[in-house]
This record gives sequence, C-alpha cells and structure tokens, in this order.
Amino acid sequence: MEQKRTEIAHLGEFGLIERIKNSFSLANDSSHHGIGDDAAVINIGQENLLISTDMLIEGPHFDLSYVPLQHLGYKAVAVNVSDIAAMNGIPQQIVVSLGLSNRFSLEAVDALYEGIKAACKNYKVDLVGGDTTSSPTGLVISITVIGRSEKPKTVLRSGAKVNDIICVTGDLGAAFMGLQVLEREKQVFKSNPEMQPDLEKYEYIIGRQLKPEARMDIIFDLAEKNVVPTSMIDISDGLASELFHLAKNSNTGIKIFEEKVPVDTMTYETAIEFKIDPITAALNGGEDYELLFTINPSDFEKIKNHADIHFIGHMHDNPKQHVMISKQGTVVPLQAQGWKHF
Amino acid sequence: MEQKRTEIAHLGEFGLIERIKNSFSLANDSSHHGIGDDAAVINIGQENLLISTDMLIEGPHFDLSYVPLQHLGYKAVAVNVSDIAAMNGIPQQIVVSLGLSNRFSLEAVDALYEGIKAACKNYKVDLVGGDTTSSPTGLVISITVIGRSEKPKTVLRSGAKVNDIICVTGDLGAAFMGLQVLEREKQVFKSNPEMQPDLEKYEYIIGRQLKPEARMDIIFDLAEKNVVPTSMIDISDGLASELFHLAKNSNTGIKIFEEKVPVDTMTYETAIEFKIDPITAALNGGEDYELLFTINPSDFEKIKNHADIHFIGHMHDNPKQHVMISKQGTVVPLQAQGWKHF
Repeated sequence: MEQKRTEIAHLGEFGLIERIKNSFSLANDSSHHGIGDDAAVINIGQENLLISTDMLIEGPHFDLSYVPLQHLGYKAVAVNVSDIAAMNGIPQQIVVSLGLSNRFSLEAVDALYEGIKAACKNYKVDLVGGDTTSSPTGLVISITVIGRSEKPKTVLRSGAKVNDIICVTGDLGAAFMGLQVLEREKQVFKSNPEMQPDLEKYEYIIGRQLKPEARMDIIFDLAEKNVVPTSMIDISDGLASELFHLAKNSNTGIKIFEEKVPVDTMTYETAIEFKIDPITAALNGGEDYELLFTINPSDFEKIKNHADIHFIGHMHDNPKQHVMISKQGTVVPLQAQGWKHF
Repeated sequence: MEQKRTEIAHLGEFGLIERIKNSFSLANDSSHHGIGDDAAVINIGQENLLISTDMLIEGPHFDLSYVPLQHLGYKAVAVNVSDIAAMNGIPQQIVVSLGLSNRFSLEAVDALYEGIKAACKNYKVDLVGGDTTSSPTGLVISITVIGRSEKPKTVLRSGAKVNDIICVTGDLGAAFMGLQVLEREKQVFKSNPEMQPDLEKYEYIIGRQLKPEARMDIIFDLAEKNVVPTSMIDISDGLASELFHLAKNSNTGIKIFEEKVPVDTMTYETAIEFKIDPITAALNGGEDYELLFTINPSDFEKIKNHADIHFIGHMHDNPKQHVMISKQGTVVPLQAQGWKHF
C-alpha cells in the first residue's frame, strides 16, 4: 500500500502551527494561554509566567562564513528575549541546548557562550540549564526563555480594538538589507578571495542583521509612562506579516500610511542600490526584532513625544480589509509574505 | 596567526557542562538553582518551578530506520518528564521545537505529534508552544518541560547523607540490550532485505528502548507514603554514571551490591547471547529512565515492600571510594562511562 505524502510547504509554517494548535487542548489549570502568541502564558499566582522558544539551525538561519559565533550567541538570546518583550514581560531565565558537530572546537563553543553571556548580562537573564549534544553536520541552537509579567499587564496579540493606534519602534528593513550586503560580499569573496569586503559604509544595517537587540528599553519606557498596549508582537517575519497576526487575532482591519513607516537612510539607500523598493524591505524584510503594538487612543498623549516610537496607522472595523496608503495617496492592499522556511 | 583548536572530546560532555556552569553566575533572585541538576529550580513563591530541556538529533540519538516517529515523539516527551520526576516534581507544560528537512511529509509530522500527544495525555502535560523550522538534513527535536514541586519536597542531587539507602526503580540494562537487538536486525536486513526481522521474542527490551516511560508513578507512590528522597537523578546515562553524580554532588562514597541490581531475565539472556556481561549492561547501558534515589534509613520501613523499588546499597563516608560488591563477594571499583557524545 502506498502511503499518502503531503509536503509541509503545502501548509506553510503558519498552517502547520495552526494544525498543531487545533489538535492539542489544554488540561492543566495553570496553562492559561498556549500556542499562537509570542509566548505561552502560565498562571503562577499573582504573576504570569511567560515561556517562549526558538530554534536556530545552521543553513536556513545563519551562515557561519560571515556570522561570528559570538554574535550568533548574542542574537540567539536576543530573539528569545524579544518574544518576552512582545508580551510586555520581563525575561528572567534561559535554558540553552546546543547540537555541535566535530567541526566545532572548544574555542568555538567558548566564543558562542561569550555572546550568550553578554546578552544574559545585558538583558539581566540567568542561564539556568541546557543540553549539549553532538550533531552530524551543522550547529543547532535551541533556547527557551522564561519571563514574568504582572497579570493585568500581560499583552496578547488579540486585544486590539477598532481605532487603536498602530505603533512601531525603531526602524524597519535594515536587518534585511544588511543580509543582502553580507550575501553579496560573500559571493564577491568566493569568486575573488583576494578582495577585501567593503563593509564599513554598511555598518549600521549589517549590525542590525548580525546583532539585533530586543527592545526591552521600550517595555520599561511604556511601564514608566503607564501605557499597557492593547496588543503586541515582535517583528521577526516582517511588518506586514506581523500586522496580519494582530489583525487576525484581534478581529480588526489595518490601515497604515507608507510615509509613517520608519526606514533608516542607509536602509533606504542600500535598497535603491539593490533595486529593491525600500517599503518592500520594511514590510517584508524581517529580523528587525522591533516591537509592533497598538494603543488605546487615550494613551497617545503619554508617548507621542517618544523619539523611537512611530505611529503608523490605526485599526478599523473591517477585518477583511488590510491596506496601506502609499506616499502618492493610493490605497494598496497589504500582503503578508513572512519567511518561507519550507 | 594560527588559532588554537581544542577538541570538545578532550573535555567530554560533563567537562563542558562544568566549564559553562563555572563561567556563568546567577543574577535574578528567582533563579534558585541553575546548571548541574536534572532541572533548574526557580522560585515562584510557595512552590518551585522546575525547568529542563533535552535535544534529540537524528543520527546520534535515534535512527529512523527502526524508530517509528510516533514512538520518537512519545520518547522525546517522556525523557523530559523523567527529568522533572527526578526532582520529585510534577510536570505541567512543554514547548516543542522541531527542525525538519524536506524529507519529512506532513503525514510524518502528524505521526510525530501523535506520539507527543499520547505522552502529553499520559503525563498530564500541556503543549503550550514551540517553534517549527527547516533543517538542512535530519530531524531535530528540542523539548523544554516546566514542572512544579512544593518547596520542601524538591529533591536535588546533592542531599544524600552517609548511611542513606540507595534505591533504584524498575530494572536496568533493558533499553541498551534492546538497542543492540535493533542494530543487529538492521545489519541483517541491510545485507538481506528479504529477511524479516525476528523481534517478537525481544519485545520487552525493544519496548524499553523505543518507548521508555518516565516513572511518575513512583513519584506519586513516594508522596503517598510520605517519603521525600534525600537525593535523586534519573538514569539516562547508566547506573554507574548517575551514582557518581549523586556521590559527587553529595560528597559521599558509594557501596552497591551486584546481586541487588535489578536486571530482567530477558535483558540477562540477551546480554549473554551478545557476549556482554549483564551487569555491564545494567551499569553502563543507559536510557532506562528509571529513578535512582537515596532515602534516610528511617524511611525504609515505609517503602520496603514496594514491588518496584530495589535497595541496592548505601552511601558511606569516603567520597573517593565507589565500589560494588560482586556476586562472588569481591570488591570491584565502580567506573562511570556515561555516553560519549563527542
């Protein structure tokens, strides 16, 4: 008998997550909120415990020919911390599992842990455990982070209301353009190893790719100003994809303005150099690890002067209509690409 | 300048863990106990939160030519639950990260999750999150489990005292002998694909390899009888290696009796068939996922009639002397082999 074979690509990553989510139910009282947000929410009394996990695999996720191990260690922690930030939580502990092939020396492992340690120090998280094992080929890093948030302050993807203001931190598309530069220089180097890569003028965007930061500073600023976002997510797959997650979970429609989407000058110029529309890099680039959140309009006054929070649009009442108003004033339907891993 | 290169094998897995542990310190008040036990201990008020993580990689950890995906999913959960059991805790949540190559169809992923689901149901844990990503070659499964225990009942590796009785559950060496049978049948099949493997007579030991159970039943029995072990660990690397962990952490010496070490008849006979000393399979075989613990002698009466707890020796005051009294009455120094991943 021939067995049926369906490719995973047929469902896609989000389809697969949905499928898993639907086939599991929650039995323990403490399991407050499971699959489908940046972190799971577990009831531990007065506070919520937040758990998130990310796996980085050599090849699909990073290329050690231009990613220093120290930066990789830092980034692996930062992307996990970013998931806790996206719940309006404070990260506290991580466990780190490593799969290593015999290509990796002790010095390489030390470099990786140097980066992990620097991130732990920066984000005030403790490494409390892990697993170290051998891998037949590449490097695998799997990190789980544990965080906390006060119960009324835990922010899900699902709380946005009609008229809530859509906010985004920092600038977008830089990590993606940094990756394009690194990939180009790798090709140049491969065809002519004498050639030294010219990376200096791209320092900012390359830094955004190699060493992203989780925006814990924004979480502390919001707390100080007494603003609890109504919904939040971190931008790992690109602004458009993340906007769709908020809208779907909150059952709202999106309207954003192209001119309000923050793009750094270097990102803009590099995009032009690569013949990429800068707004495409911002909408679909991914790996920025900025925060995307919505606030009640009554909170606008409290943060309107924050130098690093940008107000790019608002939620409206038609959950089937997600649009961007272009710089020319035309209405463009938004499309979520996300990353295609499969 | 040439860079120094030290092989990880030079340190070994335990040396590497020790090195990582020594280079990190704990900063958060809630981080009660970090690297170096079956699970990390986090203070969440009245209870302790327990966290443990395990990564299974195709090749070093499992061979899909004879491991059904459903069993693999079950086992991946069970080995994590076993780490929580070893802290005298109750597992509650898991997060599961998968790295999948395009060799794996949706049907394969479904089979894997079927096993994960069966284990979740059996151990009453909730799947609350995870990450799914692509892998260039094999399958990678990384699971993190969260459990709880009442504060005075959390059991570390470090609490054994001189004269404490050493206890072990179930029987040992079966999973290792099951693996030998599976490997042999694989070789037979490779050289003659017409030949059907004869596995029926090895059912018990193969089951121990393919579908181990975490001994949560023992944890509940101990609670019912009001026994809190003084130290505990689960047997993943083999009895000898785990005894060394308890002794080192508790600063005690070990004395066990060969005749008391529980070995199933099928394990015994298969070992003889493979020309392996049965006690070697029990001491160094690994993957039994039974519990090894010590009790205060005053607790002996409470559990002495338990059908599945075996009293194999006691702790003594010389932390440099770890011995087994053979069936012939000779004193044999114990040697910890553990698994050599690197």
